This record gives sequence, structure tokens and C-alpha cells, in this order.
Amino acid sequence: MKLNIGVLPGDGIGPEVTAQAVKVLKAIAIEFNHIFTFDKALVGAVAIDKTGSPLPDETIEICKKADAILFGAIGNTKYDDDPDATIRPEQGLLGLRKALDLHTNIRPVIAYEDLLNKSSLKVKAIKDTNLVIYRELTGGIYFGEQKLSADGNIASDTCEYQRFEIERIAHKAFKAAQSRKRKLTLVDKANVLESSRLWRRVVKDIAKQYPDVKLDYTYIDNAAMDLIINPRQFDVILTENMFGDILSEEASVIVGSIGLLASASIGDNHVMFEPIHGAYTKAANKGIANPIASILSAAMLLDHFGLDEEANRVREGVDKSLKLHITTPDLNNKYDHISTTKVGDFIEDFIHNPDETNLN
Amino acid sequence: MKLNIGVLPGDGIGPEVTAQAVKVLKAIAIEFNHIFTFDKALVGAVAIDKTGSPLPDETIEICKKADAILFGAIGNTKYDDDPDATIRPEQGLLGLRKALDLHTNIRPVIAYEDLLNKSSLKVKAIKDTNLVIYRELTGGIYFGEQKLSADGNIASDTCEYQRFEIERIAHKAFKAAQSRKRKLTLVDKANVLESSRLWRRVVKDIAKQYPDVKLDYTYIDNAAMDLIINPRQFDVILTENMFGDILSEEASVIVGSIGLLASASIGDNHVMFEPIHGAYTKAANKGIANPIASILSAAMLLDHFGLDEEANRVREGVDKSLKLHITTPDLNNKYDHISTTKVGDFIEDFIHNPDETNLN
Ligand SMILES: CC(C)[C@H](C(=O)O)[C@@H](O)C(=O)O
Ligand SMILES: CC(C)[C@H](C(=O)O)[C@@H](O)C(=O)O
Repeated sequence: MKLNIGVLPGDGIGPEVTAQAVKVLKAIAIEFNHIFTFDKALVGAVAIDKTGSPLPDETIEICKKADAILFGAIGNTKYDDDPDATIRPEQGLLGLRKALDLHTNIRPVIAYEDLLNKSSLKVKAIKDTNLVIYRELTGGIYFGEQKLSADGNIASDTCEYQRFEIERIAHKAFKAAQSRKRKLTLVDKANVLESSRLWRRVVKDIAKQYPDVKLDYTYIDNAAMDLIINPRQFDVILTENMFGDILSEEASVIVGSIGLLASASIGDNHVMFEPIHGAYTKAANKGIANPIASILSAAMLLDHFGLDEEANRVREGVDKSLKLHITTPDLNNKYDHISTTKVGDFIEDFIHNPDETNLN
Repeated sequence: MKLNIGVLPGDGIGPEVTAQAVKVLKAIAIEFNHIFTFDKALVGAVAIDKTGSPLPDETIEICKKADAILFGAIGNTKYDDDPDATIRPEQGLLGLRKALDLHTNIRPVIAYEDLLNKSSLKVKAIKDTNLVIYRELTGGIYFGEQKLSADGNIASDTCEYQRFEIERIAHKAFKAAQSRKRKLTLVDKANVLESSRLWRRVVKDIAKQYPDVKLDYTYIDNAAMDLIINPRQFDVILTENMFGDILSEEASVIVGSIGLLASASIGDNHVMFEPIHGAYTKAANKGIANPIASILSAAMLLDHFGLDEEANRVREGVDKSLKLHITTPDLNNKYDHISTTKVGDFIEDFIHNPDETNLN
């Protein structure tokens, strides 16, 4: 298969982890006779520094031409600490999601047997967790009208949803549930929000087309609790943009490290793959960033193109690295950890020699 | 001291748990020579059933006259499952918060030594947790403009904040931090929301008046993760309405049961005390609801009026009940639990005979 992949490393640890994912994809191309080409582009704080814009036109063009995009991370503490900045790195990521209409963000949360003891949660609470969050990614309060009064004393954001925005992700989520445990939980705040009530109405309607899927509802406050008390009760979680942001980052505690969670952002014409973690400016360039979330995002990219064997090879490599504790300090002893690059090297080696790789 | 207390049991398990808190307050009145009178009023689904309104005028009047209000719980699944209902129980609670201008909601989260093993979190993760969430309660997306297009295809909610709304709760939160571990964490989504950036600006400004308090910021998605990974890092968490709703319910996992978390809602002229849990319609009238959150809300009521010894007596009673496992099934073995009323009786006995009570 020929794939042109847009690579947007972004800020902080983004470049380091993305480099490992690219390394892994190159190994897959060699082993399975594919032609993967990579086009790099700027986004985020680095793009602001170099071009003045967090999302230069050239980047959008590269992304529009690409078959898929691999995204790193975005954000820089120098903007975080300045609420008056009008140009912000996050506009790069949000602008990209919007420009490419990447409306459906898929975030799997799977408890690895080998990492159960890394979580702050008890093993019996998380064992066998296998859920996936379908987060709406181009609507809601992220993209509604924002206002700041002239005197700077009143600020507002609007959370708006249209029926079609709910429908398209809901269908994808129900279909996912059909091939999983056939349970879909809609998370909202319908006891308070008008937009949440629209979600309930639309999803209830669509559910009729998927009679084999059990639909239930829960409020976001409840869900934030239940996700920790008993994550196994969930199969597919469907939710709006902001609630999905919160729940998916929270869910990382189940897995033991946010450095493990990958995601796919799917639109009708474009697809992007990104770790759910942020830029962690402080950790950048130290070789301590966990590349697994980025590498697993690359695996989701392979899934997307039906390259199942290839995706499995990557995941087996990841599993093996975890089993052998070839891991960065978030998962390993601080004084005995393996660097970002070494973890990538190990998985690359595994792809070439799945039966031989033990320790490098 | 003479206190007139408005009692609003509300829905589901509300009446059962509130009855225990009233029992406890009556015992305190006897032991410490106070005159507490209680005025009952309707709110929520029961109020809709009896009067057509979730917040009858008479209820507002009783609350306005009262020195303090004890609130039970609100909500009924028959409304939850019907997104088309225009009259909803929650309007009772939200209307009350607004009518009485109860802008500052205080939610303490303390890990009980005797309950550490009840949590789905590891003991070492939660031990010694002692934080308090200051949740803004009368602004934000809970009270902004709501729209539903005539064709029912577009719905929106607005999250608006004004400077003074942030200032008043921020001062209270900073003052609380001064008498605690002198750390305040503002939780927001300033990388995306205009209203969050206003929060950052205002709180940063106010911080100058509290140089002895260390201020830091974190995004809601991060906070939802950090709260579970290492809750001890927090002292005072300050946040807007919706984020506070989510974080405080999530925080209940630290304590082992949502049936333990109390709250105070403070306005300039009125005060209300309420468990953070909901109505749990399914658990109603079975004697299995945990009354501790309501009883600890009563303790916060006593705190509020400077009745420290009295509040301590209540808390000692609660501690003793937990130590002796005089607890409802959320904390005890299903087949060996104590009923809602019995837990209340035990704490009542303790208040009268703090040195003698062992098992009842
Ligand atoms: C960086 C930020 C804007 C982004 C979001 O909130 O969507 C991130 O937290 C994520 O989850 O992808
Ligand atoms: C019942 C509901 C409207 C309420 C809220 O969201 O504020 C509850 O969850 C709470 O936390 O007090």
C-alpha cells in the first residue's frame, strides 16, 4: 500500500515521541512491502515561533493532501501562564480538527495485564478493563462563540450542538459497540444542559436502528466517579467534546500512565492519529517521554487502512516492551529506565524480528 | 443559640438521610442547650407532584426566613429518562441556589483512616488526603442562556462569568487556604475557554493580596487525572460550577463512598447544607442510604455558626460509627450492614453519651 503521511510533531515532547512512531511505521513499510512517505509540517508553539501562526497555511495544505496525519502534542507553558495571549498553540490543534472536520475522536482504554500494578487503582478494580471513548471533536464549547466584554469584566463561551453533529458520531459509536460488548453509554448533563438533552433525544432515536446494542445514560459527574469505581461496566462511552476530554484523561489512571493512550480522529475525508497526552514542556528533550501513545496511534493508523497484521505486529511489540519493562520512567524505576529512543528502537527491532527480540 | 432551620428533604433517599441529620441536630440542641426549630418545605420531584412546581413560592419563603437550610437530594429517574420534560426536579435545586444567591459551594474531601481500604484506589495513593473544593455555584453554564431551535435541531448553552462572581468565591478560597496548607489550585480550561481565561486573570490578580498562599493552575482534564493519581498534592481547589460538579463527585472515590461527602453552600445572606450525592431513586425507602453525608452537612452547619464543640461532637460520632463499622451497605458487607436509621440512632446516642456508646 502507498500512504502519504503528514507528520506534525508539534511542541514539547511531541517531536521525540512522533519520531519513534515514524520509526515504527518505516519498519512496518519495510517488513510488509508498503510505501509510506512522510511530510513534515509545523503546528503549535513552534509554528508561532517560526511563522507567527499556530497553524500555517502550508500545514493545512500538507494535511489535506495526506492520506493520514500523525500528530504529536501541542502547548507551551509560556502561553498557559498568560491568559492575555491572543495567539495560542492550541489554536493550531483546534484549527486543524475543524479544518479537516475530524469530528469523531476514538480513545481506547485497555488495562494491560503487565501494568496492572502501576495504576493508583487497585488491581481488582481495573483488571480486564476494555472500553473506548467516542468523543465528539469539532463541536460544543470548544468551537462556540466566545465573548469578552470591552471592559474585560464579562467572558462567555457557548456550547452548541446540531443534530447532524450528534448523529454522525453516534452511528460510528453504535457500530463500534456492535463489534464489541454491545453496550453504549451516553454521558451528558441532561438534567441541566439543553445541549445534553438534544444529545439524549438524538441518541435515543438512533438507538432504534441498533436494537442489539444496549443503550444507557449517565451524567458526567456520575461517570467521572463510576469510571474509577468500576471501569469494567463500560464498553463504548459516547460523549460531547469537553466531557470526552475530561473523561479520557481521567481514564489514563486505569492504564497506569497517560503516556500509553492513543487516539484516532476521524472525519469524512481526513484522518489524524494522536496521543491523548499533552506537550509536557518540562519533560522535553530529556529522553524520558513515553513514546507508546504515539506508537499506538500509528497502530490505529494502520487499523484504519485495514492493515490488521501490521497493526498487530506493532501492538505485539508494545506488549513485549511492557512485559520486559523496556519502558520510560513513568512506568519504570526512575534510576533504571529506558530512554524514549531506546523504547522506539526495541519496538522497531521487534517488527523486524518478532521471534528473536528479547533485550536490546 | 436559637436557630431556625429550613428542612428540604427533596426526592429519593433525601427524606431518609435528612431525617437522620435532623435527629442529630436535635440531640445537639438538647446536649448543648440550644433552641433549634425546623421548618419543612417541598422541593424537587415531590414538589412537582404536589404543587406542579419544583420550587413552590412557599418553599422560597421558608428558606429566606430560615437561619440555615438543610437540603436532602433532588432528581427522579422518570424525568432523567425524558429529555422532553420542561418542568424538572433539578430546577428546584438550581432555582434555590440562585434565589438565595448561594455562590460558594464548599466540598471537603478527607480520607478516613478507617475507610482507606474501601476505596478502589490504593491506600498509599489516598492516605492523608485532605483537600477542599471551592465550587462556584450560581454562575457558568448552569445559569447561562439556553436555546433550542424551533425545529429542535440546534441546542445551546452559554457559560458566562463576570468578574465579581469570580472575586467573591476566590477571596473565600484564598482565606480557606490561609488557614490550611496555604496552597490554592485553580482548575480551568484556559487553553480553550474565554471564561476560563477570565478566571485566570482575576484569580492571579487577587492572589497578590494573599502572598502567603501558593497559587497554581491546572486544566480540568489534567486535574481529573491528578486527583486520582495523587490527591495529596491538593489543598484548596478553586473552580467554576461545572468543573466543580465533576471533580467533587469524582473525588468521592478517594473517600470510599459518595455517601460520605458533605457540602456547604454559602451566600451573603443565606446558607444551605447538602450532601453532594443525588436522590438515588432506586435506593429509596430501603433503609440502605448512607446518612453520613447529610449528618456531616449538619456538622458544617454547626461550624458555620461557630458551634465548634458541637460540630466536633457530631464528627466524633461519625468517626466512631465508621470505626465500629456501624455503616450502611455502601461501606459494609451487604449481608451485615446497619440501616440508615440505625446509623442515625448510633450517632444520636453518641452525642448524648460520648464516653459510653459502643455498639447499639
Ligand atoms: C490541547 C487541548 C486543546 C486538547 C483538548 O482539550 O482537546 C487536549 O487536551 C486533548 O485532549 O486533545
Ligand atoms: C442535581 C444536580 C443539578 C446537581 C449539580 O449538578 O449541581 C448535583 O449534581 C450537585 O452536585 O449538587
